[in-house]
Amino acid sequence: MAELEPTRIVRLEEDAVVILDQRRLPDEEVELRLRSTDELADAITELAIRGAPAIGIAAAYGYALAAAKAENLEYAYERLVAARPTAVNLRWALDEMCGDPTPARARAIHDAEVERCRRMAGHAAGLLAPESRVLTHCNAGGLATGGYGSALGAVRAAWERGLVAHVWVGETRPLLQGARLTAWELESLGIPFAVIADSAAAAAMAAGEVDAVVTGADRIAANGDTANKIGTYTLAVAAHHHGIPLYVVAPTSTLDPIAATGADIPIEQRDSAEITTRFAARNPAFDITPAELISAIVTEQGVHRAPYEVSLPAMVRA
Amino acid sequence: MAELEPTRIVRLEEDAVVILDQRRLPDEEVELRLRSTDELADAITELAIRGAPAIGIAAAYGYALAAAKAENLEYAYERLVAARPTAVNLRWALDEMCGDPTPARARAIHDAEVERCRRMAGHAAGLLAPESRVLTHCNAGGLATGGYGSALGAVRAAWERGLVAHVWVGETRPLLQGARLTAWELESLGIPFAVIADSAAAAAMAAGEVDAVVTGADRIAANGDTANKIGTYTLAVAAHHHGIPLYVVAPTSTLDPIAATGADIPIEQRDSAEITTRFAARNPAFDITPAELISAIVTEQGVHRAPYEVSLPAMVRA
Repeated sequence: MAELEPTRIVRLEEDAVVILDQRRLPDEEVELRLRSTDELADAITELAIRGAPAIGIAAAYGYALAAAKAENLEYAYERLVAARPTAVNLRWALDEMCGDPTPARARAIHDAEVERCRRMAGHAAGLLAPESRVLTHCNAGGLATGGYGSALGAVRAAWERGLVAHVWVGETRPLLQGARLTAWELESLGIPFAVIADSAAAAAMAAGEVDAVVTGADRIAANGDTANKIGTYTLAVAAHHHGIPLYVVAPTSTLDPIAATGADIPIEQRDSAEITTRFAARNPAFDITPAELISAIVTEQGVHRAPYEVSLPAMVRA
Repeated sequence: MAELEPTRIVRLEEDAVVILDQRRLPDEEVELRLRSTDELADAITELAIRGAPAIGIAAAYGYALAAAKAENLEYAYERLVAARPTAVNLRWALDEMCGDPTPARARAIHDAEVERCRRMAGHAAGLLAPESRVLTHCNAGGLATGGYGSALGAVRAAWERGLVAHVWVGETRPLLQGARLTAWELESLGIPFAVIADSAAAAAMAAGEVDAVVTGADRIAANGDTANKIGTYTLAVAAHHHGIPLYVVAPTSTLDPIAATGADIPIEQRDSAEITTRFAARNPAFDITPAELISAIVTEQGVHRAPYEVSLPAMVRA
C-alpha cells in the first residue's frame, strides 16, 4: 500500500467534505461525501472520522463549506463543536476558522497539523532506545491526525531511525481502532507488530516484553492530566507498576487552557450498544490519565516533563 | 429464567456427555451431545464448555462414558487432560476417576464441586461490606463450575445477604465470557449489573465506583500465584494501585501442589484468529497474578491470607 496521503483521510471538494470512512477499515476503503453540516457532524459522532486532530480538520473544512454556501455559520459552529464533547480540537479549529472561513484557511490548518505531527514525532522518537518494543493504544496514526500521526508518527519516525523492534497494538475495545486502524497503518508501513487484547498488555509488561508505551491524547489539561481513549489510564497504571515509561504525543491543538486538571474535562459517554445490545452496559469513550503517571508529553514544540504547569507550551498556537 | 441447574450445564446420559453450548449463549440455549472422547475433548478445546471446575466435571463424565463403552482409558485420559493446558482440574478429576471409572463416581465429583462452591461462596460473601460494588471478570459462575459458581457464587451469596449494590462485569476479550455468560447469569439472578470494556475497569476504580474485585482461578500455585483469564493481572495491578481488595474464589481442586510459583504454570496460547483474522496477533488465554496482589484466596475450606504457602489448605481434597 502506498503511504496514506493526508487528502485521502479528509479533504474539501467543491460541494462536500470527503472522508475515508474509518468504520469500514481495514476491510473496505470507502469515501463518504458529506454535503452538509449535519452530515459531517453525524459522521464525526458516528466515528466515520475520529481522532482529535482529524475531526478538528474535518470541522474546519465543514465550516468553510458552510461559509461557501452562505449558510448559518453560528449553527455550523455549534453543531460541529458538539459532535464529540471530549476533544478540544473541534473548538480550536472552529475558532481559527471564524476569522477567515475560507477553504484556503482550512487547508492551511490541515497542512499545519500534519507538519506538527512530523515535528512531534521527531522529538518523541528521540525518547526511544534501540530495539524498542513499543506498545500503543487506539489509533494515533495518520488516520487520527489527518496525516503522519502523533503517537504512531513517533513509532514511524523511530522505525525510520532503526530504533523499533516490534509494536504491540492494543485492540482497543469497544470499537477496535487498534486492531483495525493502527494495524492497517503499521502493515502499510512495513513495521512488525502484533495485536493484543487490551487486557493482555499488563502481562506483556510483566514478561519484560514492553519497553515504552506511546499514546496520543484527545485533550490535555493545564496540569498535564490527559484525556485519551478509554484504557489509556489502565495502561498508565500498569506501566507505572512495571517501571515502564508512558509518553503522550499530541499537537498543541490538544492542549486546553481552560481545563486546570482532568476533572475539568467532560468524558463522553457513548451508546451502551457499542458494548452489548442485550444487557446494560457503561461505555465511557475516554479516561483521564493523571499527570504523575505520564513520563513526558511531546508536542511539536518539544519534550515536556513534569511539572507540566510549567513545562507545557503556552496554550497559544505557535 | 429459572435457576441454572447443574444438570443443565453438564450431565452424563447413557450414550453421551450432554453440555449446554456456552459459545451460543446468551442468544441461544443449545445442548451438545458428545458421544466420544474426541468429541468431548474438542468441545473443551473449543470452549463449548469452559471454566476450570466445569471442564474437570465434563472430563470425569467423559472418562466414565469411555469406561462404560470399554474403550481405551489411557487414550481417554491423555486426550482429555491435554484439551486445556492451564487448568489443573482436568488432571485432578481424571486421576479421581482412574480408581473408580463409573457414572456414580463422576456424578459424585459433580455434586461435590457444586457443594464446594456453595461453601466457598459463603466464606467469600463474608468479606464484602454492605452496599458493595463488586467488579468481576470472565465467568466464574455456575456455567464455569458445573453449578452455583465460585466468584459469581460469592456475589450471589452476598446479594442474598443484602450486601451487593451493583456488579461491574468486565466483558472479557477476546471471547466475551463476561458480556455473554456472567451477564446472562446475573440477569437470571436479578442482580443489578453493567457490562464494561475490560480497559474501563481502572477508570471506574479511579472514580471510586469499585469496592472489591472478585475473580475465579484456573490454577493456583503453592505460593498463591494465580492463573486466571487474561486480564485478571491487569485488574490486580489496578486494584492494588487504588487500594481496592482483590479476592480469588476457587475450589481446592484448582490448587496445584506441583507448581511452586506461577512460573511453573503453562499459559495456553490460543489461535490469533480469536483476536483478528487479518493481522498478526498474540492471544494468551491466561495471565498470572502474583500472590502479593491477592488480598485473600477463598476455598471451600475458608479464607486464606498471605503467606499462602502456609495458609492454603493441604493439596489433598477434603
